[in-house]
Amino acid sequence: MATTLAIDGLADRLRERLGERVSTSPVVREGHGRDESHHRPFPPDIVVFPESVDEVVAVVGLCREHETPMIPFGVGTSLEGHVAALQGGVSIDMSRMNRVIEVNAADLDVRVEPGVTRKQLNAHLRDTGLFFPIDPGADATIGGMAATRASGTNAVRYGTMRDNVLGLTVVLADGRTIRTGTRARKSSAGYDLTRLFVGSEGTLGVIVEVTLRLSGIPEAVSSAVCAFPGVDDAVETCIAIIQSGVPVARIELADEVQIAAINRWSKTDLPERPVLFFEFHGSESSVAEQAETAESIAADNGGTGFEWSARQEDRNALWQARHDAHYANMALRPGCRAWPTDVCVPISRLAECIAETRRDIAATDLLAPIVGHVGDGNFHIDFVLDPDDEAELAAATGVNERLIARALAMGGTCTGEHGVGYGKKKYLAAEHGEGVSVMRAIKQALDPANLMNPGKIVDPPG
Amino acid sequence: MATTLAIDGLADRLRERLGERVSTSPVVREGHGRDESHHRPFPPDIVVFPESVDEVVAVVGLCREHETPMIPFGVGTSLEGHVAALQGGVSIDMSRMNRVIEVNAADLDVRVEPGVTRKQLNAHLRDTGLFFPIDPGADATIGGMAATRASGTNAVRYGTMRDNVLGLTVVLADGRTIRTGTRARKSSAGYDLTRLFVGSEGTLGVIVEVTLRLSGIPEAVSSAVCAFPGVDDAVETCIAIIQSGVPVARIELADEVQIAAINRWSKTDLPERPVLFFEFHGSESSVAEQAETAESIAADNGGTGFEWSARQEDRNALWQARHDAHYANMALRPGCRAWPTDVCVPISRLAECIAETRRDIAATDLLAPIVGHVGDGNFHIDFVLDPDDEAELAAATGVNERLIARALAMGGTCTGEHGVGYGKKKYLAAEHGEGVSVMRAIKQALDPANLMNPGKIVDPPG
Repeated sequence: MATTLAIDGLADRLRERLGERVSTSPVVREGHGRDESHHRPFPPDIVVFPESVDEVVAVVGLCREHETPMIPFGVGTSLEGHVAALQGGVSIDMSRMNRVIEVNAADLDVRVEPGVTRKQLNAHLRDTGLFFPIDPGADATIGGMAATRASGTNAVRYGTMRDNVLGLTVVLADGRTIRTGTRARKSSAGYDLTRLFVGSEGTLGVIVEVTLRLSGIPEAVSSAVCAFPGVDDAVETCIAIIQSGVPVARIELADEVQIAAINRWSKTDLPERPVLFFEFHGSESSVAEQAETAESIAADNGGTGFEWSARQEDRNALWQARHDAHYANMALRPGCRAWPTDVCVPISRLAECIAETRRDIAATDLLAPIVGHVGDGNFHIDFVLDPDDEAELAAATGVNERLIARALAMGGTCTGEHGVGYGKKKYLAAEHGEGVSVMRAIKQALDPANLMNPGKIVDPPG
Repeated sequence: MATTLAIDGLADRLRERLGERVSTSPVVREGHGRDESHHRPFPPDIVVFPESVDEVVAVVGLCREHETPMIPFGVGTSLEGHVAALQGGVSIDMSRMNRVIEVNAADLDVRVEPGVTRKQLNAHLRDTGLFFPIDPGADATIGGMAATRASGTNAVRYGTMRDNVLGLTVVLADGRTIRTGTRARKSSAGYDLTRLFVGSEGTLGVIVEVTLRLSGIPEAVSSAVCAFPGVDDAVETCIAIIQSGVPVARIELADEVQIAAINRWSKTDLPERPVLFFEFHGSESSVAEQAETAESIAADNGGTGFEWSARQEDRNALWQARHDAHYANMALRPGCRAWPTDVCVPISRLAECIAETRRDIAATDLLAPIVGHVGDGNFHIDFVLDPDDEAELAAATGVNERLIARALAMGGTCTGEHGVGYGKKKYLAAEHGEGVSVMRAIKQALDPANLMNPGKIVDPPG
């Protein structure tokens, strides 16, 4: 941890370069040390707001010279303490680098600065017939989404950030700027540096530009809702739909606890039973065909009230309610804090994994709704906790640890989309074994002084 | 280069472990130092045929102890000198590790040893309703395809090896075995080691197991052929089809030189003009709809004789003819050697890139048909050369260098799917700039003694 004097010296030098766009105000620092999780926040010592790649290079150079940690910051919607300044240092807030640089409609790609948010990008694209499909719920920045390998509701059809980032510009710990990838759709020209930086959570460099793949807005879109007697029935329906090859765009589970919260918060009147939300993209006839197949599979599994609609207002209301699940949960207990955790398992094990997890939750007094991007085998528990109740936190920690062990034993991963941050670092060894030492060797090779978001993903050797 | 005595000593120790499955026969060595390219072959000193992960670990340990290079080998269908033993050493032939370990039909995944070939895998899957879609033409091994990030005709719909490898088991240079990835469809648990090893061409470790994503065999498949007045018209048709969002499974270009060669070799009677080959996958109605849209776009661009067929015999004959293009080209000049090179560009630049390249070829005396996976913006020149004619080789080298410069200037890559090997190493700096030094740092971190397929992709620092 740097001394106050050292920090003052660095802040002065940063101000020489960035002027007023350097803050040591406690309020600004507090806001940059926390994300949307329950994890303990750690405020940085300084927050800077660069407006260009050159300014980021200058900030990185000064931090290196002062041996001070640096933590890239988007809008702080991460969920595992990714932006916490565990060892103090400088938060590099990328929100002012928010230009859409170039839309190549003919190539279905776009080049953006990292501070562009996904909603801003889609608003910008409105007249092009194209959209950026990755939708993690929060209006995260593209840079943050790339850094955490974000995913969300559309991933079952459109993939995750891993699949939709064509290339990056990154400022490395040593101040050099590299460009990974090209605008070509595919390449076998050397190591896949793009995929190395996607999901590296700011530990290998600062992402300063992102080239994204876009998708054509489908000719037709329809959505549907269907309720099931039990969670198993809903999950079995999902598995059968995926296995049957229906190219569903979204297929989301909410259990009855979650539906009750949604109804109360969003003034909906969904049946308070396990529900699947669907969305289908394609031509008019393909969308109708997909909905019919899904309805028939749902009916085979006891699904009732399958309603589908191609009206945009209905769809928007439905997905807004789904996206607001986290806020709906928090509203169940005023003053509480929510802790969303996620795992992802092979889809054949999904029903079993969710059932065992629900039994585990039922054996506690926890309020813990389950939602899931079940088409990918990915689901979340959203623990709703009294932040001052140690016993509750301990119970949730136990459920989370058993959840992760269960997912790993089923051939799954400790996080499908939330990332590692400092909240899940301790589980990486169980998932990757010796692979963690390979990650460590890469970290050491690219950031030998361990100044890039230290304490996240892996610690340095020794 | 190791001395004969040192090699004898290593061969003896390898025989202690692998018995008869160690060869120093000149014929075997010759066969393991060459691939299907025109690049000069370099035979290894020793070829080993391990049958288990433990044996690979033992081979790697002995090579390390003897400071001897090791080069993983599949079936030798690579195209940029990937398997050439530039500094001698041990070729690790993985062909005896060719078991399909586990098919998880419900999860659409499969675990295989690296020596399984793609045709062997698809034969194995025949009764499951699933298939492995990546089709580079050659019956390559899955390990080799992962190592070179192979792609091919289906990539426009199903992605490349990057997208279809879920996880790998890799023996590292230091003898440790790591498992990357899980069977989960997505993960954000740390650095993406799977994507780092996919495309690393044996320079970071030996792939000893691969978990692949499978796809459902589509309910309906149809194929089509359409001829165009000029290459531009064919390419514009392709661009319009991709931009219109038709989920075409394959869209392949062959120019009139290539079609003439195919007709002669495969006894087909295709019009000797630029041709697009299509394949559509989906439901019966979706396939019909796709074919109609494609036909209409083709007609707008002067396409004539659009014929489509859902008969499997017709499809097989068509794709066999397409896959035999390379052999058809070699048959044009008995005794010649073919040199296939590839680039990939943003699709909006594809017509221009191909047109300029054809003008460049026309200014030479070269026989150089063009084929392309044009839905991805990827195309190949297949130079047909007299191996003893230095002037021809020099002319082809010039065309290749200008092709690569053109592709890079258009925002593309120096290789879309063939890889780097030693043939394209010199072009990486132009494509990646400082990124090459990041690749070098990773290579150095994971293989400090530079024993893993040395001389490919990047050289060590200094």
